[in-house]
Amino acid sequence: MNGIDIVTIKQMELKGAYVIDGFPSVGLVGSIAANYLVSFLELELIAIIDSPTFPAMSLVREGVPYSPVRIYAGPIGENGEDNIVVFVSEFQPPPEIIKPLASTVMDWVEENKCRMLISPEGMLIPQEAVGEEGPGVDKDKIMGIGSTATATNILEEKEISRFETGIIMGLAGVLLNEGVNRDIDVITILSWAHAEYPDARAAALCISAIDKILLQVELDINPLISEAEVIENHLKQVYTVSPIMTWNSVSRKSGTRSIWVLR
Amino acid sequence: MNGIDIVTIKQMELKGAYVIDGFPSVGLVGSIAANYLVSFLELELIAIIDSPTFPAMSLVREGVPYSPVRIYAGPIGENGEDNIVVFVSEFQPPPEIIKPLASTVMDWVEENKCRMLISPEGMLIPQEAVGEEGPGVDKDKIMGIGSTATATNILEEKEISRFETGIIMGLAGVLLNEGVNRDIDVITILSWAHAEYPDARAAALCISAIDKILLQVELDINPLISEAEVIENHLKQVYTVSPIMTWNSVSRKSGTRSIWVLR
Amino acid sequence: MNGIDIVTIKQMELKGAYVIDGFPSVGLVGSIAANYLVSFLELELIAIIDSPTFPAMSLVREGVPYSPVRIYAGPIGENGEDNIVVFVSEFQPPPEIIKPLASTVMDWVEENKCRMLISPEGMLIPQEAVGEEGPGVDKDKIMGIGSTATATNILEEKEISRFETGIIMGLAGVLLNEGVNRDIDVITILSWAHAEYPDARAAALCISAIDKILLQVELDINPLISEAEVIENHLKQVYTVSPIMTWNSVSRKSGTRSIWVLR
Amino acid sequence: MNGIDIVTIKQMELKGAYVIDGFPSVGLVGSIAANYLVSFLELELIAIIDSPTFPAMSLVREGVPYSPVRIYAGPIGENGEDNIVVFVSEFQPPPEIIKPLASTVMDWVEENKCRMLISPEGMLIPQEAVGEEGPGVDKDKIMGIGSTATATNILEEKEISRFETGIIMGLAGVLLNEGVNRDIDVITILSWAHAEYPDARAAALCISAIDKILLQVELDINPLISEAEVIENHLKQVYTVSPIMTWNSVSRKSGTRSIWVLR
Amino acid sequence: MNGIDIVTIKQMELKGAYVIDGFPSVGLVGSIAANYLVSFLELELIAIIDSPTFPAMSLVREGVPYSPVRIYAGPIGENGEDNIVVFVSEFQPPPEIIKPLASTVMDWVEENKCRMLISPEGMLIPQEAVGEEGPGVDKDKIMGIGSTATATNILEEKEISRFETGIIMGLAGVLLNEGVNRDIDVITILSWAHAEYPDARAAALCISAIDKILLQVELDINPLISEAEVIENHLKQVYTVSPIMTWNSVSRKSGTRSIWVLR
Repeated sequence: MNGIDIVTIKQMELKGAYVIDGFPSVGLVGSIAANYLVSFLELELIAIIDSPTFPAMSLVREGVPYSPVRIYAGPIGENGEDNIVVFVSEFQPPPEIIKPLASTVMDWVEENKCRMLISPEGMLIPQEAVGEEGPGVDKDKIMGIGSTATATNILEEKEISRFETGIIMGLAGVLLNEGVNRDIDVITILSWAHAEYPDARAAALCISAIDKILLQVELDINPLISEAEVIENHLKQVYTVSPIMTWNSVSRKSGTRSIWVLR
Repeated sequence: MNGIDIVTIKQMELKGAYVIDGFPSVGLVGSIAANYLVSFLELELIAIIDSPTFPAMSLVREGVPYSPVRIYAGPIGENGEDNIVVFVSEFQPPPEIIKPLASTVMDWVEENKCRMLISPEGMLIPQEAVGEEGPGVDKDKIMGIGSTATATNILEEKEISRFETGIIMGLAGVLLNEGVNRDIDVITILSWAHAEYPDARAAALCISAIDKILLQVELDINPLISEAEVIENHLKQVYTVSPIMTWNSVSRKSGTRSIWVLR
Repeated sequence: MNGIDIVTIKQMELKGAYVIDGFPSVGLVGSIAANYLVSFLELELIAIIDSPTFPAMSLVREGVPYSPVRIYAGPIGENGEDNIVVFVSEFQPPPEIIKPLASTVMDWVEENKCRMLISPEGMLIPQEAVGEEGPGVDKDKIMGIGSTATATNILEEKEISRFETGIIMGLAGVLLNEGVNRDIDVITILSWAHAEYPDARAAALCISAIDKILLQVELDINPLISEAEVIENHLKQVYTVSPIMTWNSVSRKSGTRSIWVLR
Repeated sequence: MNGIDIVTIKQMELKGAYVIDGFPSVGLVGSIAANYLVSFLELELIAIIDSPTFPAMSLVREGVPYSPVRIYAGPIGENGEDNIVVFVSEFQPPPEIIKPLASTVMDWVEENKCRMLISPEGMLIPQEAVGEEGPGVDKDKIMGIGSTATATNILEEKEISRFETGIIMGLAGVLLNEGVNRDIDVITILSWAHAEYPDARAAALCISAIDKILLQVELDINPLISEAEVIENHLKQVYTVSPIMTWNSVSRKSGTRSIWVLR
Repeated sequence: MNGIDIVTIKQMELKGAYVIDGFPSVGLVGSIAANYLVSFLELELIAIIDSPTFPAMSLVREGVPYSPVRIYAGPIGENGEDNIVVFVSEFQPPPEIIKPLASTVMDWVEENKCRMLISPEGMLIPQEAVGEEGPGVDKDKIMGIGSTATATNILEEKEISRFETGIIMGLAGVLLNEGVNRDIDVITILSWAHAEYPDARAAALCISAIDKILLQVELDINPLISEAEVIENHLKQVYTVSPIMTWNSVSRKSGTRSIWVLR
């Protein structure tokens, strides 16, 4: 339809599943959180997303080639009675693909009758607050916003502060709007993050909010931060190879076939 | 059809309704007037307009996410026997979308058998008349022009001066032409406005003309100006975040996911 | 089909009508001649032409809004036994629209079984001949060229010199080719004109040739020149507002809604 | 299909005809040769080729308007038992149209069951060989290459040297490939030519090879060169008017309607 | 479908065939290896690949014209019981065609029920390791990566080291991903190569790995290097003619018809 295909690799019953949007945001919060959840919860690759505008590349990890945008899933909860789905992408979708990508994700969520979609997002720490506790920037505070009354109630129950007034740009913003239009529960979790580097700490805060909402395993945030730093390191290497972090630039460079070895 | 979709959120009978075009114009006159009418008349969100060329963002107000282009509606008149529909947009549509957007709006007006469409527009105050009463620029004077004999008669009855000779560019111009071609009553209300900032005074003058034509509540323009200034302030903040006020630039920036907190 | 629509406003029987192409050429000869014929012959607006690439604007004259490209028609001849159709445009179509526009015009001419199409064209006065009678540039001389034997004979009968060898670029050139391909009588009338300003004198010469071919009212060219100057003045104002005279640039500017008052 | 239309002006039985590709190449060899053949053999205009990407212009010769790309045909041989078809274009097709143009030409050749297609091509004389007989550049030598065994045999029989190793870019190259893929006899005739000006001498050499292959009138090359120079002169004038010799640039310029008088 | 056509020239049963991807990579490793296999194994031209984005040119070798992208095939093994298919291209596909090209290749592999696809790839030798044996760059070492467990096992059996972690960009990367998604055995063979010139030595190393996997003729690598150098030389000439090695640039230049003689 819109040039974005979801290629199923493994069928799985996902009715009622929680879906995490792991496309990169400020400080790569989304990517780090998603990668962490995939490895912590030992999720399985169930599909990949492809589009002519996605980068022409294969990510190789431990001798296995991966597409740049992937969907993982697996059981959560004490008895594995619930399912979690995680969309993971190391690269930022170009602006022109954001709206069709949001539609594709939401269509998939609807078709699979998933319960809820959660976007972990980084909020840019204002220049004047970098290095100190700026006025109004409590770096430990996470905020949330929901697309529906149900979503808003969940945030209230879990004692996550409400994001009151502002603008949410990019995929998370469109997913929220689509949540309103389709009456699907969409929650954006916001934490202050640095734009200059992958921010594992901000990602960890988002994960702890995700833990409150659906995992309820009362994660100790500190080991989580170290693990997130491993992912952060890996992402740094990926972005060193293709320093401009958009798919567009990667696509352009991918015209010249080349291989990078990551250590 | 043309890539612009109207997504209905709430069904409402709108036969005979008055429709206000609240897309931004010089001095943001259209946006301010539309936002004012929505809050003054306590209108309800009934639909949103979406298109791949619209900005990928969610506007958050009081913890509720909104699409950037929205349609509100509600009853007017002493016994609520009439309806008003207000199209509201904080962002200027890019040139290539103006004609299909005008068609979409007029198709919607026709399908819903609305009575009339009114565009509040700002006329750029000439450079030489800024700061003083320039020759031929009576800042309190509003003018109007109609697409049909009926529309022209209404302006005459309401003692709104006729805009005699000139060029009306952008959405309002195309809506007027479409009014001629489809034989639908379209009125453009023109007031002198500043281009450099949101001009609440010019918007208030347009609202008073709209009051004359359809509300007939004999609005006192002064409190209206203060209220309009609140909206003006809010818009200023939105435009500070995305200083170049076109959708195009917003779309381009929206590639980088980010969040802005407005105060 | 090709993105250009003719929207009929008034049905009229036009079999056998003479059609004038009033799109602007060098010295705006076509636009001036067409506007003159519309006002001199008191023609009626019967249709407008629209396309996504046409400028998003409404021309307001005497309080009435007009589309930028219009078709007028009315009876000519002593007993009104013939009809004339005049295509009028104040703006130059962008290069990419010229071929589909020519097809649309010729399809319309064929469908309405019109008799003939005439393009009044300005030929650029060579730089070295400006200000004096340059060699080979007789400014009072008009030339013509026809697409068919019939058209060529008419030029001969009316003692209009034949344009022997050269290149006719733009819409008039394509209309001539289409005349050859479809076996329809197309005549291009050429007069020397200045490119820097609307050239009423050159337009008057073209009109006198049109008079010879179809009006046969033996127009006195002098009052015609004064009247043409009024139109020339009006066009100058239009082009002051949007100084770059192509539709493309107008379209780009029309993104910013604005109104100009012409005096 | 591919946006290129062949508009038939006169039906003619062309089974077994020889087809000459007269699109311009280095030194305008193709255009000069094709124009020469049209006037020498007194061929008739049977069709024109049109496309949105072709220049919007009419070429006027002796008071008759012509499309920029034309197909001529007529009988050859002592008793007129054979037919020749000549494609003539004064302008170079832009890169993006070359492949669809080649398909259109070859489809037409197949549909009309023509016998063979011949492309007269100029080979750029290397810089170091200009002004003298450079090593390996025998300016009187023509070479040829064929798409099939039959085409190769014809070259051998007619004692035309074989072009052994190299690259043939543009339309001639694609026509050769299509000849291979469709098993149609396509021959490229190559002669050394100057790129800076229309090279009548190189064109004459190509014509003498065409003479060997199909005309067999044992042309005296000297009067042919003088005649070719007339055409060369005419082409120089055309290219003076539109100095950048690609259709693209002509199309861009053709936005501004204008007329050039050629002497 | 996607604008890429495979034109069959000779039908051949290719069930179970090994397919080599000979599109150029770093050091032109793929092109050199593919050209070598075609001449060493005396393979036959069975098809060409064409697309509007491919260069408009014909490569002439020994008086025979060839399309720029070709498919060759022939028997291998002692009794010719197996088949090999080699895709050969002298030019690099532009970025926007890589994904549809990969799909076209894989569709063809699936339709013809081929056994396996192998991409010989050059890995860029890091700047600091040029001229000496840099740390971690063993220039004689080849590595491999497979899309499936079967492919991975073959690499292990043949004692080809596994490429552990990194990014494979361009066609080879997408072919690997497609191998995963379609469950087809795809192997990428990687050897260190120089980007500045065609690297016959790196190509020879890849061919020796291909020999291990499927030819098993225990090739002596030294004569192979000399032969590869002949091909390398030829490719150098092709790229001298069109120095920027992408199809895009070639396409752009191919607008000007021209011929190059290669020695």
